Amino acid sequence: MSSPSARVPAPRRRRELVVGGYARLDRDRPRRVGVPEVILAEGKTVDHLLGIVRALASEGSGALISRPSPAQRRALDADPALRGRLRTLAHGRILRLLGPLGGSYRAGTVALVTAGTSDVPLAEEARAVLEGLGVRTVRAYDVGVAGLHRLLAAARRLERRRPELYLAFAGREGALPTVLAGLVRAPVVGIPTSVGYGRGGRGEAALNAMLQSCAPIAVVNIDGAVPAALFAAQRFAR
Amino acid sequence: MSSPSARVPAPRRRRELVVGGYARLDRDRPRRVGVPEVILAEGKTVDHLLGIVRALASEGSGALISRPSPAQRRALDADPALRGRLRTLAHGRILRLLGPLGGSYRAGTVALVTAGTSDVPLAEEARAVLEGLGVRTVRAYDVGVAGLHRLLAAARRLERRRPELYLAFAGREGALPTVLAGLVRAPVVGIPTSVGYGRGGRGEAALNAMLQSCAPIAVVNIDGAVPAALFAAQRFAR
Amino acid sequence: MSSPSARVPAPRRRRELVVGGYARLDRDRPRRVGVPEVILAEGKTVDHLLGIVRALASEGSGALISRPSPAQRRALDADPALRGRLRTLAHGRILRLLGPLGGSYRAGTVALVTAGTSDVPLAEEARAVLEGLGVRTVRAYDVGVAGLHRLLAAARRLERRRPELYLAFAGREGALPTVLAGLVRAPVVGIPTSVGYGRGGRGEAALNAMLQSCAPIAVVNIDGAVPAALFAAQRFAR
Amino acid sequence: MSSPSARVPAPRRRRELVVGGYARLDRDRPRRVGVPEVILAEGKTVDHLLGIVRALASEGSGALISRPSPAQRRALDADPALRGRLRTLAHGRILRLLGPLGGSYRAGTVALVTAGTSDVPLAEEARAVLEGLGVRTVRAYDVGVAGLHRLLAAARRLERRRPELYLAFAGREGALPTVLAGLVRAPVVGIPTSVGYGRGGRGEAALNAMLQSCAPIAVVNIDGAVPAALFAAQRFAR
Amino acid sequence: MSSPSARVPAPRRRRELVVGGYARLDRDRPRRVGVPEVILAEGKTVDHLLGIVRALASEGSGALISRPSPAQRRALDADPALRGRLRTLAHGRILRLLGPLGGSYRAGTVALVTAGTSDVPLAEEARAVLEGLGVRTVRAYDVGVAGLHRLLAAARRLERRRPELYLAFAGREGALPTVLAGLVRAPVVGIPTSVGYGRGGRGEAALNAMLQSCAPIAVVNIDGAVPAALFAAQRFAR
Amino acid sequence: MSSPSARVPAPRRRRELVVGGYARLDRDRPRRVGVPEVILAEGKTVDHLLGIVRALASEGSGALISRPSPAQRRALDADPALRGRLRTLAHGRILRLLGPLGGSYRAGTVALVTAGTSDVPLAEEARAVLEGLGVRTVRAYDVGVAGLHRLLAAARRLERRRPELYLAFAGREGALPTVLAGLVRAPVVGIPTSVGYGRGGRGEAALNAMLQSCAPIAVVNIDGAVPAALFAAQRFAR
Amino acid sequence: MSSPSARVPAPRRRRELVVGGYARLDRDRPRRVGVPEVILAEGKTVDHLLGIVRALASEGSGALISRPSPAQRRALDADPALRGRLRTLAHGRILRLLGPLGGSYRAGTVALVTAGTSDVPLAEEARAVLEGLGVRTVRAYDVGVAGLHRLLAAARRLERRRPELYLAFAGREGALPTVLAGLVRAPVVGIPTSVGYGRGGRGEAALNAMLQSCAPIAVVNIDGAVPAALFAAQRFAR
Amino acid sequence: MSSPSARVPAPRRRRELVVGGYARLDRDRPRRVGVPEVILAEGKTVDHLLGIVRALASEGSGALISRPSPAQRRALDADPALRGRLRTLAHGRILRLLGPLGGSYRAGTVALVTAGTSDVPLAEEARAVLEGLGVRTVRAYDVGVAGLHRLLAAARRLERRRPELYLAFAGREGALPTVLAGLVRAPVVGIPTSVGYGRGGRGEAALNAMLQSCAPIAVVNIDGAVPAALFAAQRFAR
Repeated sequence: MSSPSARVPAPRRRRELVVGGYARLDRDRPRRVGVPEVILAEGKTVDHLLGIVRALASEGSGALISRPSPAQRRALDADPALRGRLRTLAHGRILRLLGPLGGSYRAGTVALVTAGTSDVPLAEEARAVLEGLGVRTVRAYDVGVAGLHRLLAAARRLERRRPELYLAFAGREGALPTVLAGLVRAPVVGIPTSVGYGRGGRGEAALNAMLQSCAPIAVVNIDGAVPAALFAAQRFAR
Repeated sequence: MSSPSARVPAPRRRRELVVGGYARLDRDRPRRVGVPEVILAEGKTVDHLLGIVRALASEGSGALISRPSPAQRRALDADPALRGRLRTLAHGRILRLLGPLGGSYRAGTVALVTAGTSDVPLAEEARAVLEGLGVRTVRAYDVGVAGLHRLLAAARRLERRRPELYLAFAGREGALPTVLAGLVRAPVVGIPTSVGYGRGGRGEAALNAMLQSCAPIAVVNIDGAVPAALFAAQRFAR
Repeated sequence: MSSPSARVPAPRRRRELVVGGYARLDRDRPRRVGVPEVILAEGKTVDHLLGIVRALASEGSGALISRPSPAQRRALDADPALRGRLRTLAHGRILRLLGPLGGSYRAGTVALVTAGTSDVPLAEEARAVLEGLGVRTVRAYDVGVAGLHRLLAAARRLERRRPELYLAFAGREGALPTVLAGLVRAPVVGIPTSVGYGRGGRGEAALNAMLQSCAPIAVVNIDGAVPAALFAAQRFAR
Repeated sequence: MSSPSARVPAPRRRRELVVGGYARLDRDRPRRVGVPEVILAEGKTVDHLLGIVRALASEGSGALISRPSPAQRRALDADPALRGRLRTLAHGRILRLLGPLGGSYRAGTVALVTAGTSDVPLAEEARAVLEGLGVRTVRAYDVGVAGLHRLLAAARRLERRRPELYLAFAGREGALPTVLAGLVRAPVVGIPTSVGYGRGGRGEAALNAMLQSCAPIAVVNIDGAVPAALFAAQRFAR
Repeated sequence: MSSPSARVPAPRRRRELVVGGYARLDRDRPRRVGVPEVILAEGKTVDHLLGIVRALASEGSGALISRPSPAQRRALDADPALRGRLRTLAHGRILRLLGPLGGSYRAGTVALVTAGTSDVPLAEEARAVLEGLGVRTVRAYDVGVAGLHRLLAAARRLERRRPELYLAFAGREGALPTVLAGLVRAPVVGIPTSVGYGRGGRGEAALNAMLQSCAPIAVVNIDGAVPAALFAAQRFAR
Repeated sequence: MSSPSARVPAPRRRRELVVGGYARLDRDRPRRVGVPEVILAEGKTVDHLLGIVRALASEGSGALISRPSPAQRRALDADPALRGRLRTLAHGRILRLLGPLGGSYRAGTVALVTAGTSDVPLAEEARAVLEGLGVRTVRAYDVGVAGLHRLLAAARRLERRRPELYLAFAGREGALPTVLAGLVRAPVVGIPTSVGYGRGGRGEAALNAMLQSCAPIAVVNIDGAVPAALFAAQRFAR
Repeated sequence: MSSPSARVPAPRRRRELVVGGYARLDRDRPRRVGVPEVILAEGKTVDHLLGIVRALASEGSGALISRPSPAQRRALDADPALRGRLRTLAHGRILRLLGPLGGSYRAGTVALVTAGTSDVPLAEEARAVLEGLGVRTVRAYDVGVAGLHRLLAAARRLERRRPELYLAFAGREGALPTVLAGLVRAPVVGIPTSVGYGRGGRGEAALNAMLQSCAPIAVVNIDGAVPAALFAAQRFAR
Repeated sequence: MSSPSARVPAPRRRRELVVGGYARLDRDRPRRVGVPEVILAEGKTVDHLLGIVRALASEGSGALISRPSPAQRRALDADPALRGRLRTLAHGRILRLLGPLGGSYRAGTVALVTAGTSDVPLAEEARAVLEGLGVRTVRAYDVGVAGLHRLLAAARRLERRRPELYLAFAGREGALPTVLAGLVRAPVVGIPTSVGYGRGGRGEAALNAMLQSCAPIAVVNIDGAVPAALFAAQRFAR
């Protein structure tokens, strides 16, 4: 039998930021695949999150931190090493650690459209990510399909800006991306939002409706504003 | 202890058609609640179905028989007692046993709208029921939301006929009833159809989307064309 | 290639109330489709809800606000611009912003029936909407099917009032609308309620049972008292 | 370490019928727990089923064989060793291998009630089991809740026979056992049947409705006519 | 058309306790079907529950109140009209309003068995109901199948008391009722408990396992200790 | 009340192909939104499909017909009007009606990657669509993550061709798009395939895994090769 | 920007068998991870499967082919290049292409236990794999938990053979692995089988029950006999 | 009829610790099956847990207590009889009652690998169990598949320690165990973690992905760190 470790391919050397025994940040990713570091705060212990953000700050890097809990935000705010380094975006759903995010993005425009008022905070998450990378956004909020004239007017207005991609946010029956995709020329990505109650609530009906769409849209998971923004941004990476 | 059967209330005497030991038809229902007899063939043994239809035919009654299987249809066609008494409707999904259906219905109009071509056979089921009862229908088929101009034109045309109720059939993402309900004045009942594949297929996404609709529509079960038609018809019962 | 915005149809001009960048109220809807403005508070940020209600109040309109959270209610109560303009209905599940709701409704009666005591608050939501529009209601509460004599007595009493539609609220096994539909002459809409525990709890069993009903009932989503009331009201719109 | 097999308790000696390497029939069960041998044919290879039935026949035992497939029935019919030993019951859903079933049962009556005609074959499965053990049955078929007078009449008739248990079969919305349990004095066991289509079809809605029943009924799995009959029979075992 | 209310059968006169417009208690049920009044507190508003209990107390009746919330319990405790009338049972999951429960029950024994320690409070709910009606119980707790010798010893001990029915409580994989039913002579009713985590947790796996049992057991819903006890009690009603 | 049809906005005039009463093809879509006509054969009656294809053929248009059933293919093959006009692609999963598809697409490359051999027919569906529109493809099939060296080699080879988008097909655990997205620079769209058995089979696990991906991928429904190809193609539309 | 392919790590060179453009067999796996080549026939086109097996045969390798369809088996049987090279195992669920499987395994014993007769073919699949690799098996079939004495006797017998691992196959309620794990000393892997009907049927209840087991068992997917056998075999790889 | 208790086999005498009427600890299990006592605190009342731990402490035994709630921990900490006997492990998810755990384990190594930082606390649960029994662990945390080079480096490092089993923890898409199993020689057990949001969140997607793995891994339930550790430990029992 060959020596055991010889069976595993030797990885190419990567830039990596190791934090405690619990985190290894892939510092090479922005350059390699065109996607910046976004740290999902949800699910991490306060100590682990704090350790990661401090490590990034101490090497002078920037980052986006998504969905911090109140306890996590308090700990970050209280940390002297982070003083003045954090900015709150998207109704508190995104924290921006100031500093370079890595990667480089060409000019371009993404359209953000929401079916209802309740979907606005999610669209703002996407906006925080895209504008953080220098990608322009145009927006039309609360233009759902039950009042079609609102959507027709919005689509006309947005098309004039020639966006390269649409991010369409909708909960409930999730019909917006389908109807929008029949009106505009750029590809549409649907983001189901956890809006709705009873059967199919919490975005379940919206997600399935987008997956079943008669129009060729692509989708991300429920409330997946950040993944959708990164998918969009990658198009502009250079 | 009181005598056991004394504890159950004595029912009022009803007209009933008892067939073998296996069926008791509620002959009083059309008059009582304004809904005609529709025999769901699906799930019944061939012998049971044949027995029921023969019993109705021999007392001179008419009936609607929905979703007969090929074996059931062959048995009904081969029965000498039913010769000339059956008519095929809605691509074979409905059989009409000629004769009075019971009940009486005022004049009125129901609009039938489908999102796609695949939904047409279901709309035709509803039409067979409604027109069998003397309720008028107006129709617009294949006017789904991915090509909105088709739907806008159809809604204008149908509204001119002032229908009292819309039955909107849609599979896939099931958005048609929601969009329609934002355009027309009469109430809309959504009928999800078992059109679609993968996650949310077989009408599951469409049903949930209709339940989550931003517009105040009511719904029936997947492929529930006959119940929807009966719900509509009851409005015209007198 | 044609100019991009030329591809989207020009919408007909509509009356619209735009609030911040986050809400566009369809002020034309009551007249167009016969359904008044009902603002679903659930899922909106406190600021967004407050902004919408203030905008309506400042133009002198009335509205129904459904399912406000405690925080939302506190913010609305504390707003000087809304002082004396709000009324609490249906155990606090509906707020009524005083002022015209739009639309016009003919006289008529809807029957409200509940299976249990736990379903009463939902029936009261529907009552608040219907009576707000001038539609009369008759009621029978806690007349579920496990004690049939209660239901028989209630159905007799309600039928004397000749309602044009029944709204039947039931959780648990959700059998009430089915049994009721075999007893009364007007169409029955079932509203599953989030009553029940274990498998099929939170209204899931009731919804499915209503979708599977042997009687031709239509349904709305779990706890969908407001959509059911609006579906009913649309029948009386003129 | 102790000897490995010493760690497992020595079982008491039981009468067992070992067939090939693939089946071990518990010949002691009828006497031990009051439940006869019922062989579920579904899922067994033709060879395995044939081997088991032959082994029982050769030792002179009787048995009930439930849900044989056409291929299994052909193989059993063609076997010379079984000639004249098999009887077909319940529309072919039960085969009776003639001979003693084991166990002994006191006199008593079970009521069998079905909501529709489609549920009759399942009730007949239960009847085959119960009458095979000498338990009397009384029956009322097609007495579902959408036409309540049928059920009231049936309940009165059945109560006169003072059954000790009710088996109530229902598909679709599955309301029969709940309504029945509010009318009769003996305990009710609900058997959901795989009748119905769309959401909640194949007995799913009926099962959940019975689990959510407002009345204290017990249930078995969908189409579980044989387990329900055995549960009932055990009451009469002596 | 006949007069509308004439179409509904006249119910036989029943003893009923009407409370506010929101509750109608079926005072005839204990005598009619052998099941006492149990008021499910869960889901009722505090005011509704208080009104019902007060009405029962004021007519001198007893009752069982299941699963009161802390707020409900505080309101009941604080009510002067109920002082000294309430007793707490089963770790607070049952309140007993002192006074006659109605109905009459013959002597008999039910065995209560739990798989784990976490299932004990539910078994105690059943015990409170049964002993409240004068039905004896024998018990074996924490005798799950992973340590089989505990179960074998318990089954031997319980069988000596010749119970007429077993109630077997189990969460997690829910195997206890199946194994028990292979060891004892009386019928077994399985009560899945909401014990367990991850996939199949909260009693879901246990319920399905009991529905799939190789032994002919009947089941009730997850945590359905009270329905199971009432199903058992009905056997002893006279 | 205004005239009813006046309430619906007048649609802009569109080029439309109306077939029988059952189909309205949106002939304007390729130019309007950059997506060609693809007719989903699945779910349509043979007569309806035949009518649609004949109508397109008679006006000299081309089309893609996806997932024809054997009966549909026989009817199309037997039609004299279609002789020589149809070509079979992607193992018969796509039929190409010869003639212009509409729209115009710039040069560009899409990479098609499959996890297993079973996913190849779906990737070939996407290839038929893309190459039909003049979009180049590069391919790497059977390079799933359980043998990582295959995937690393494939990613290196494909990246040299600088594709603008990756379509990654995977069934079973669906990990391929996630791992691929960590290796390449262009955005990745995941297509779950209906490969797999047991829990999570038929693409269910793969779809959910892609929705949960740690990498910012977008997804389409299970077996959604054609929608994915159209989403990709829209990027190249001009 | 660096050259695109430079961003992907260069894989170490592996032995690979490339077939057509559709398959790449990882010939290095047996040596690398101790798991032989098993080709899952299910889901592959006949041509693809045939191509793969021929390629293996022509290089003189052996293989296990699991779950061939009748059409696939006919094609393999008819191929002259495979004449005499294939052997049928496990009731046709496994084909053995004669020739070396790769890897090397030390002596050892695995116990195979099934709850019922219907589970036997799956256990035989596992046996074919294990014995093909030279791992010994001991077996006890049809020893489910409803007749506990059978299982106790089997466990005693098997423990005497000191197996290093148990594979326990069970459908329906899936309790066997849990009970077994309380009796024996070696680790137990549960394999849920697609045996059962109604709710939780097709192995769903069994899988969840095993995941919820009170005993520390590990599981594989429903009908995952081959993966379970490979997991077991890997223990003996050297 | 034989005497009832004679029908149940007499169990062999076992060492058992009976606590109140609510717990019976199987003190024989460590010796019998090689698995120590782990008390799942979740779901037990505070009193019951306290009683059990006290009983163990008073007989001088040790134990592992998993997932205590804050209330349970406070009660245990406050108990004078337990002073100095408890140690907190794995971020408070495990309490160690000092004293012998029973059983005896040979030397050996298990590898613990996590996909993300959020999975670390679960891996630490497993480590607490394994190291409590004297089994060595090696670890690599936050080495998920979206940055493959981290995983390749970790696998090389861990293989050098020749672990006999891998425990791979992953939430979200759950791909880690599959990819790892293609790289290392020892068997891999996957532990899905309740990390993730939206569809497939809370570990659901990860569990299904592991069940569908192309590699022969075994799995435990979501967050099943303790069962996985015990399954691993049993391998080392002697």
